[in-house]
Amino acid sequence: MSEIKTILGIDPGTIFTGYGVINIIGKTPQIENFGYLDLSKISDPYEKLKMIFHRTIQLIDEYNVTELAIEAPFFGKNVQSMLKLGRAQGVSIAAALSREVEVFEYSPRKIKMAITGNGNASKEQVAVFLKNILKFDEIPKKLDATDGLAVAVCHYYQSKIVTGGSYKSWKDFINKNPDRVKKK
Amino acid sequence: MSEIKTILGIDPGTIFTGYGVINIIGKTPQIENFGYLDLSKISDPYEKLKMIFHRTIQLIDEYNVTELAIEAPFFGKNVQSMLKLGRAQGVSIAAALSREVEVFEYSPRKIKMAITGNGNASKEQVAVFLKNILKFDEIPKKLDATDGLAVAVCHYYQSKIVTGGSYKSWKDFINKNPDRVKKK
Repeated sequence: MSEIKTILGIDPGTIFTGYGVINIIGKTPQIENFGYLDLSKISDPYEKLKMIFHRTIQLIDEYNVTELAIEAPFFGKNVQSMLKLGRAQGVSIAAALSREVEVFEYSPRKIKMAITGNGNASKEQVAVFLKNILKFDEIPKKLDATDGLAVAVCHYYQSKIVTGGSYKSWKDFINKNPDRVKKK
Repeated sequence: MSEIKTILGIDPGTIFTGYGVINIIGKTPQIENFGYLDLSKISDPYEKLKMIFHRTIQLIDEYNVTELAIEAPFFGKNVQSMLKLGRAQGVSIAAALSREVEVFEYSPRKIKMAITGNGNASKEQVAVFLKNILKFDEIPKKLDATDGLAVAVCHYYQSKIVTGGSYKSWKDFINKNPDRVKKK
């Protein structure tokens, strides 16, 4: 793994869309940017989708993103909100497809699990873990930004596992990665 | 209305995506192309979305499409299928947004109503009406193609009404458009 990988993590939503960009140089993830789009005051649904689409493309171009990781809940409150969410995901995915960037998706539970070891962790807990992993100075007030970053880091862990190849079990993975076990 | 308008109608779905292109020259809609994407044998969901995205862009570019009309059901069987549908709609919308093409959406009921005068018309009935309106030779076996065309024609009727301006009621519209009333 000598090549530089740049992962854009995105948590698309029609009220807030969080994003985070990390660079993988060697084995260390480095934070490039994170933030969120505030779409709460925009009433036109196409204007919202347009902003998500163009910001995703802009981030891909600016940071030479090689992989897009997307937070994708599979269950929602109702069909209406799932249709909206699907559209927001769709335009993010299209932005990646238009730049030949590969897309990966992770459930919220999987992301929380990857970052904190607990699939039911709160947004705040995820943010604290990310702060330690990526060594940024301050947790932002708006946790939509860390949500985006969390998807990127989750994908980094996931692809490390995939790249590493043949772990037979979680125990096997821990044995081969003692540096990733939290010391008590 | 002397400028040429070209409308791409699209009925996005992850199994079949129907499309139709019409040109409005003067007051007459002329058929340019219609067909469907068969995605039934593709298993990778991103490959499906990629095909919808690229075909939509290709049609926009080839026919200099000025407006995209999309069939958008607002209710579905379950949240899973609505998420998939939302994604398919999202990539179509993103294709239009990437080319600065305006997007309009219509419910299936509205489309059937606009073409046949009956919101509960069957696909076959819609196809027969379209054949008469656009004067094409043969109804295709696969009615996903006429579904796409129907959205385009619905938008043409709708924008005629919008362009025409100030109808106070359905009655008022009929009074001002005697040629659009079906003779018994």
